[in-house]
Amino acid sequence: MRDLLGGKGAGLSEMTNAGLPVPPGFTITTDACNTYNQQNFTFPDGLWEQVQDALRFIETESGKNFGDPSNPLLVSVRSGAKFSMPGMMDTILNLGLNQETVQGLSQSTGNPQFALDSYRRFIQMFSKVVLGLDANEFEEILAAKKQSTGAIQDADLTATALEEICRDFKELVLKRTGKAFEEDPQKQLSESIKAVFDSWNNQRAFDYRNYNNIPHDLGTAVNIVSMVFGNMGDDCGTGVAFTRNPATGENVLYGEFLTNAQGEDVVAGIRTPESISALEQSLPEIYHQFLEVGRRLETNYRDAQDLEFTIERGKLYMLQTRSAKRTAQAAVKIAVDMVAEGLITKHEALQRVEPQQVEQLLLPRFDEIAKENAEQQGHLLTRGLNASPGAASGQVVFSADKAQALKDEISNIILVRPETSPDDVHGMLVAKGILTALGGATSHAAVVARGLGLPCVVGADSLEVNEAEGYFSVNGVTIKENEEISIDGTTGQIFRGLINTIDPNIEEEHELQTLLSWADETKHLGVWTNADTPLDAERGLSLGAEGIGLCRTEHMFFAEDRLPIMRRMILAAADATQLEEAHELLRQQIDTNTTRESTEDATAKLKDLEAQVQASDAVADYHASLNQLLEFQTQDFQGILKVMAGKPVIIRLLDPPLHEFLPNYEGLLEQVIELRIKQNDPETLAESEKLLDAVNSMREINPMLGLRGCRLGLMYSAVNAMQVTAIFNAACDLVSQGIDAMPEVMIPLVGHVNELKLVREDLEAIATKIQSERGTQVNYKFGTMIEVPRAALTADEIAQYADFFSFGTNDLTQTTFGYSRDDAEGKFLLKYVERGILPKNPFQTLDTGGVGKLMQGAVELGLHAQPSLEIGICGEHGGDPDSVAFCHELGLNYVSCSPFRVPIARLAAAQAAIEGTLERDR
Amino acid sequence: MRDLLGGKGAGLSEMTNAGLPVPPGFTITTDACNTYNQQNFTFPDGLWEQVQDALRFIETESGKNFGDPSNPLLVSVRSGAKFSMPGMMDTILNLGLNQETVQGLSQSTGNPQFALDSYRRFIQMFSKVVLGLDANEFEEILAAKKQSTGAIQDADLTATALEEICRDFKELVLKRTGKAFEEDPQKQLSESIKAVFDSWNNQRAFDYRNYNNIPHDLGTAVNIVSMVFGNMGDDCGTGVAFTRNPATGENVLYGEFLTNAQGEDVVAGIRTPESISALEQSLPEIYHQFLEVGRRLETNYRDAQDLEFTIERGKLYMLQTRSAKRTAQAAVKIAVDMVAEGLITKHEALQRVEPQQVEQLLLPRFDEIAKENAEQQGHLLTRGLNASPGAASGQVVFSADKAQALKDEISNIILVRPETSPDDVHGMLVAKGILTALGGATSHAAVVARGLGLPCVVGADSLEVNEAEGYFSVNGVTIKENEEISIDGTTGQIFRGLINTIDPNIEEEHELQTLLSWADETKHLGVWTNADTPLDAERGLSLGAEGIGLCRTEHMFFAEDRLPIMRRMILAAADATQLEEAHELLRQQIDTNTTRESTEDATAKLKDLEAQVQASDAVADYHASLNQLLEFQTQDFQGILKVMAGKPVIIRLLDPPLHEFLPNYEGLLEQVIELRIKQNDPETLAESEKLLDAVNSMREINPMLGLRGCRLGLMYSAVNAMQVTAIFNAACDLVSQGIDAMPEVMIPLVGHVNELKLVREDLEAIATKIQSERGTQVNYKFGTMIEVPRAALTADEIAQYADFFSFGTNDLTQTTFGYSRDDAEGKFLLKYVERGILPKNPFQTLDTGGVGKLMQGAVELGLHAQPSLEIGICGEHGGDPDSVAFCHELGLNYVSCSPFRVPIARLAAAQAAIEGTLERDR
Repeated sequence: MRDLLGGKGAGLSEMTNAGLPVPPGFTITTDACNTYNQQNFTFPDGLWEQVQDALRFIETESGKNFGDPSNPLLVSVRSGAKFSMPGMMDTILNLGLNQETVQGLSQSTGNPQFALDSYRRFIQMFSKVVLGLDANEFEEILAAKKQSTGAIQDADLTATALEEICRDFKELVLKRTGKAFEEDPQKQLSESIKAVFDSWNNQRAFDYRNYNNIPHDLGTAVNIVSMVFGNMGDDCGTGVAFTRNPATGENVLYGEFLTNAQGEDVVAGIRTPESISALEQSLPEIYHQFLEVGRRLETNYRDAQDLEFTIERGKLYMLQTRSAKRTAQAAVKIAVDMVAEGLITKHEALQRVEPQQVEQLLLPRFDEIAKENAEQQGHLLTRGLNASPGAASGQVVFSADKAQALKDEISNIILVRPETSPDDVHGMLVAKGILTALGGATSHAAVVARGLGLPCVVGADSLEVNEAEGYFSVNGVTIKENEEISIDGTTGQIFRGLINTIDPNIEEEHELQTLLSWADETKHLGVWTNADTPLDAERGLSLGAEGIGLCRTEHMFFAEDRLPIMRRMILAAADATQLEEAHELLRQQIDTNTTRESTEDATAKLKDLEAQVQASDAVADYHASLNQLLEFQTQDFQGILKVMAGKPVIIRLLDPPLHEFLPNYEGLLEQVIELRIKQNDPETLAESEKLLDAVNSMREINPMLGLRGCRLGLMYSAVNAMQVTAIFNAACDLVSQGIDAMPEVMIPLVGHVNELKLVREDLEAIATKIQSERGTQVNYKFGTMIEVPRAALTADEIAQYADFFSFGTNDLTQTTFGYSRDDAEGKFLLKYVERGILPKNPFQTLDTGGVGKLMQGAVELGLHAQPSLEIGICGEHGGDPDSVAFCHELGLNYVSCSPFRVPIARLAAAQAAIEGTLERDR
Repeated sequence: MRDLLGGKGAGLSEMTNAGLPVPPGFTITTDACNTYNQQNFTFPDGLWEQVQDALRFIETESGKNFGDPSNPLLVSVRSGAKFSMPGMMDTILNLGLNQETVQGLSQSTGNPQFALDSYRRFIQMFSKVVLGLDANEFEEILAAKKQSTGAIQDADLTATALEEICRDFKELVLKRTGKAFEEDPQKQLSESIKAVFDSWNNQRAFDYRNYNNIPHDLGTAVNIVSMVFGNMGDDCGTGVAFTRNPATGENVLYGEFLTNAQGEDVVAGIRTPESISALEQSLPEIYHQFLEVGRRLETNYRDAQDLEFTIERGKLYMLQTRSAKRTAQAAVKIAVDMVAEGLITKHEALQRVEPQQVEQLLLPRFDEIAKENAEQQGHLLTRGLNASPGAASGQVVFSADKAQALKDEISNIILVRPETSPDDVHGMLVAKGILTALGGATSHAAVVARGLGLPCVVGADSLEVNEAEGYFSVNGVTIKENEEISIDGTTGQIFRGLINTIDPNIEEEHELQTLLSWADETKHLGVWTNADTPLDAERGLSLGAEGIGLCRTEHMFFAEDRLPIMRRMILAAADATQLEEAHELLRQQIDTNTTRESTEDATAKLKDLEAQVQASDAVADYHASLNQLLEFQTQDFQGILKVMAGKPVIIRLLDPPLHEFLPNYEGLLEQVIELRIKQNDPETLAESEKLLDAVNSMREINPMLGLRGCRLGLMYSAVNAMQVTAIFNAACDLVSQGIDAMPEVMIPLVGHVNELKLVREDLEAIATKIQSERGTQVNYKFGTMIEVPRAALTADEIAQYADFFSFGTNDLTQTTFGYSRDDAEGKFLLKYVERGILPKNPFQTLDTGGVGKLMQGAVELGLHAQPSLEIGICGEHGGDPDSVAFCHELGLNYVSCSPFRVPIARLAAAQAAIEGTLERDR
């Protein structure tokens, strides 16, 4: 009944029912809170009467009476929502004390100091929580009294001193509120209940719920429980404990205990608590009783518990039990251990670990103590946007070229840039971490870093990067090139100096391996990886990838040794293609006798065209550079196909607009204008102007929707032909060595079946020719991405020419919403999410209502037309747990994501399968 | 049976069946042609035997025998496809002649000259068509002989000369082919049939079919008809005639006639034919017989006919009848007349006119004779792309500013630019025509010109425009500013000097008005217009628009007096909004007691923010410029709503990215670099740098998918608020004057229901407030465009907050295909259409398979959720006949298109309704 009683109330009730020692009490439901809020902050009808009845029950149980001067019943009033919101809401202890009852308590316990200390605490809490007064002023009075009386700890204060403190407190209340402190226990109670109800809507609680995706309309319950006291002497105490170590997961009782103290003292950190094991020495019977209670609660809840308890005069009281919060490491170990212990099933174990926790386990992370020290020493420089998780320490380098040059000298490079562009990729490849002053969560730096699994902080806008002079400054501190910094991509923190990092190795994470092996047994979805290099592929394999769902060939062309060749090819492509096509067309017309002029004229013209082709620099450049690229690509594909032997490798043909490989237009423009004005280097000017013209002619207004994907292949077919030749040459080489190369050629950005038909026919002819020339049979497929809405809408037609579909959900999201991710996230999308216009960023979690509808339609149409169709997803969503679950529901064959997200996807896929089974059984 | 017999064969057969005088003959079917092509160019089994049987039938009918030396039967062999392909395919006359039969013909006719002339013609045609020899060489022999014998016309040649010509022809054939000329009539016949079959696949025919969208697999029929001779004396002759005037549509026989001639002489233009009416004098009986035949054929075919006939020795023979090709004007007149004559129904009349013909009738066009004269005088300078139809003459002006300045002095301005941008719109508005050297069919110039109905030629790439020195040069000719040129946007021609234009007035096009009134009675779809100004609106009304489907407010801001205000507003918007939102948020938090700090601190902060808002230049600029724009907009809307009183006016809120209104980034960059290098004007430099930064911060990588549409409204709500205030102020003013203003506020680019919900709620509150303050009730709607796939996919959700949907099919096509129209058309789209990858340009004709599927889904979902939803289309497709038909099928309420296309849409909508009824009846 957590919905109605809140977590705390449900736990208390469950413990009571189980016969565990719980002080008598009762719970006001969340319903009451919600009604209170709706009724303009007044109690629901009958609430107060029910509270009175319940109070009488406690009185009977405890043998004390509320407000009775001789033997007063004291209660705690604590909030307790459905989901734990630690420290976010309010608690009042010792309620029921006033000038009279404090005397009674003093007499009944024979401990005036205790009674007055309890009263002092109550006034302090009530003033803060109910009256909203500044807590510091009370602390100041307390501190002053300690100083004037020479008391070191609160417990050193004498009854007299405490009495004076209570008096001073009440005077302060009168001064600040204009009213005397409330003496009537009933009014104390009703005000306190209202204060707890109100605390549901304070700003901290509101923000916490927003951050943790907790609905705002749940409301809080209020727990009113008879007080027990851990501060009545040395046979008393209070503590919190976990049934297992919440940091490591080890199956030992773990917690802290304070002798002669109330609960808040443990939390406040004024006295240093002892380890729970100290209890074994001091109160062995209680310790063993507590161990037994913990075991019973674990068995009951079938999960590690977080317990609060108090010992009053040698008697144990349980004040709270709840599922223990735990680190990623502990979550995995506890889940796996509990299966071994027969407490839970494998399926339950799989559901106990959040996919994100798996990610945390696999990233380099700062040693927590080292990081704390750095913070305490003031080394935290600033915070940016946590763009790609993980931690990195190293020396600052300000340019990609320099990073490349220094890669052998400096083992840990942190590349710091104002922002990054494709020109910087070679530097990013050798860096351990990326830091930029500009850009958002989907800036180039962020996207590339996530792809590479590199820690990355972007948009640290207090950074001023002066690349020319080799330093950056931030909040008055200047960091020069080669100085050391540390960045935490998980939190966005940027530190001066080195912080020790812990670099996890999945091979050694035995419990995680066990859990993931159960995931593999359970899941229906395949989990593949996006990998552009053999290294990526190996990484993916070691993390459990069953294939490569996306090998992007364009990244291969950005390498330093290839980019100039690529550029030569691109600058020649248009002229060469035009000339060669004209020649080819005329040749065909002559062959088929369909020329417009006489055969003689046509033949003469053909000869002329032949001569032009022969003499053309563009044609020569085009083919020479394509041949060079062919060599590179053959090696590339051989490397990847070999690593992935026996597993499918989906290779996407060149996709981005060609101008992405050319120098930046505006940079060139600046250069040309300068040269024009200075008039001192006509030769360089002429050359630069020519290049500027060429780059200009290729620029596009909306490159995302321009000449790219298969459109490129249809305009410049030689590029596709080169790539397919490389793929099949590489595959044939491997197959003849007995290695099972399984290439799947993916034709991107298809929107009309004819595009796929034409490109596939051309390319499959090349594949067939190579195989027959080599006498080798390759196990291959041809297929397409579904990444524009029209492809999804006409998937039945497209499926007739596709062996596989791969949903490119990044582009599909862009086109379905009409969002350019590069522009949208910075300019409006994050605000949309902030304001709740969109429930989530659709580039992180699949938009099932729109994009998902297209995907579902495409799956149905595709499979209807082609039942053997292999269908997967290769957008970034492939590594997002919610999106993986949706892909499971759609019945896809696999999801593909970056290597580092493969374990996450494996777990998410298993959870989706379990959820699916449960759903079916419900 | 046109499929099987072709047009010509079907006509001959029909005329024969009707008892009209047709020479005996037979037709080889298109099936035979197709089989021939499939069987590797061999006759189908049995074909030759059937030809022999049919020949025997002709022999019986004509009393002559094929190959009979004494009384030879001669035949014509002519192609005839289902669709007329004039001049594209081949004809052979007088087949059956050889050295022997020519003697027989000579004797039987007693006319050796005639017989030899017939033989000469046969050899010439057979050599060209069957043997593929160069026709010029034969013409040269003929010309030489005429010169040597002093003959002026062919008919002047004596029998001897003709005999020598035949001999020389045969020698030439022997020389060129190595074989003697075929003497066997049977072989002549079989070779000729093959040649006609083959002609189906020659390049000219192939190109013609491509151009006219005729399928390539229809094949041609072959008509073999007994020869009749119009060249046997003065009681002979041949002619072509139309049953009605094909230029004007007048109901009079119209045609040409040559005495003593064969058919090809009429076409060849060697002798000038007489008017058909001359026949009335020379052969009155024949004339009247012919009139009667024409009347019978018109009644039979219920359409104006194009006839070929020959008179042989006083006897009329009909050689062909087919539906007459006609001008737009004639098409309308004939259709309307025929209804009056009771020949056809109104529905049939509506189907007889192509929607494009209506467009032609409404555009200014050059006087044909004046244009011909200009061409003959060498005034044609060059051709560009025919971007927006219509003709314009006027004085050249090279800049938009100058055009604006000169608009009162020069009444006809032709704006000539390298290319245009939004900065040029104020100049385009005062021009009579636009000419650009660069750009394609969808360049800025083309799109704006089509919207304005301005003649426009773009991409005239031989033009070199030197704006600075005020001239352009083309093919060696230089045209200075203020010189006169004429451009034909229908053909792409550019002339030097003035050419008279004819400016049609729809009021005076009575037959068209009649036809369109029938269209209005027939159609189900409403036809609305896209109009941004009162003038546009009036134009649309006069052309029959029933509402405004799209009033784009952005065009209003490009006017010279508004652009600076707009820019001031834009440059202040971000800072002003940020400050004001921070202030508003804090105010709300204080009001609701949800601040994070103490109320005192928060109040102090609020005061500080208030002071900042007060002191901010950005805030002041923002509101001052918005207030100025409010004035302008109120006038704008008043104007349009008044013109359209009683009819709905859909006003789209500001849609384009704001940076479109700012100066061009690269221009600014150039300026800044120059100023930086020259270092002579630090003040201007600082200013320019500031502007450059501002423009840069607003630039987008893919502006089409960026911060625009309702996203703008959500980020800068004051702009929307200003527009809606203007709309409702204007509407209230009019309503209080008794004018029925019917504004419909359209919120663009909605992709998620929450966008519409939030914007609508805010704006409707403003509308309600204004109406209640004014005490006036306006008949208004709020709705949205459906222009991104996600809107279509979630139309049920969106419909809950929309009174109307308007399909923005331009953007919907862009996002569904993933095409940026600006980039795609030039870079690959037109090639896609050329190569048949796409059947049509989807920006011209709706892609029913993809975009249409989304539309259909949206209509169904939308109406299901909101049965009263008004649904229309306002993309450019609204004026495309095929797309109008599709919208009819979808059951939309209306289509909206530019004013000039309204009559086209009315006709197309009527045709769709008729087609729908026919479809249902089938």
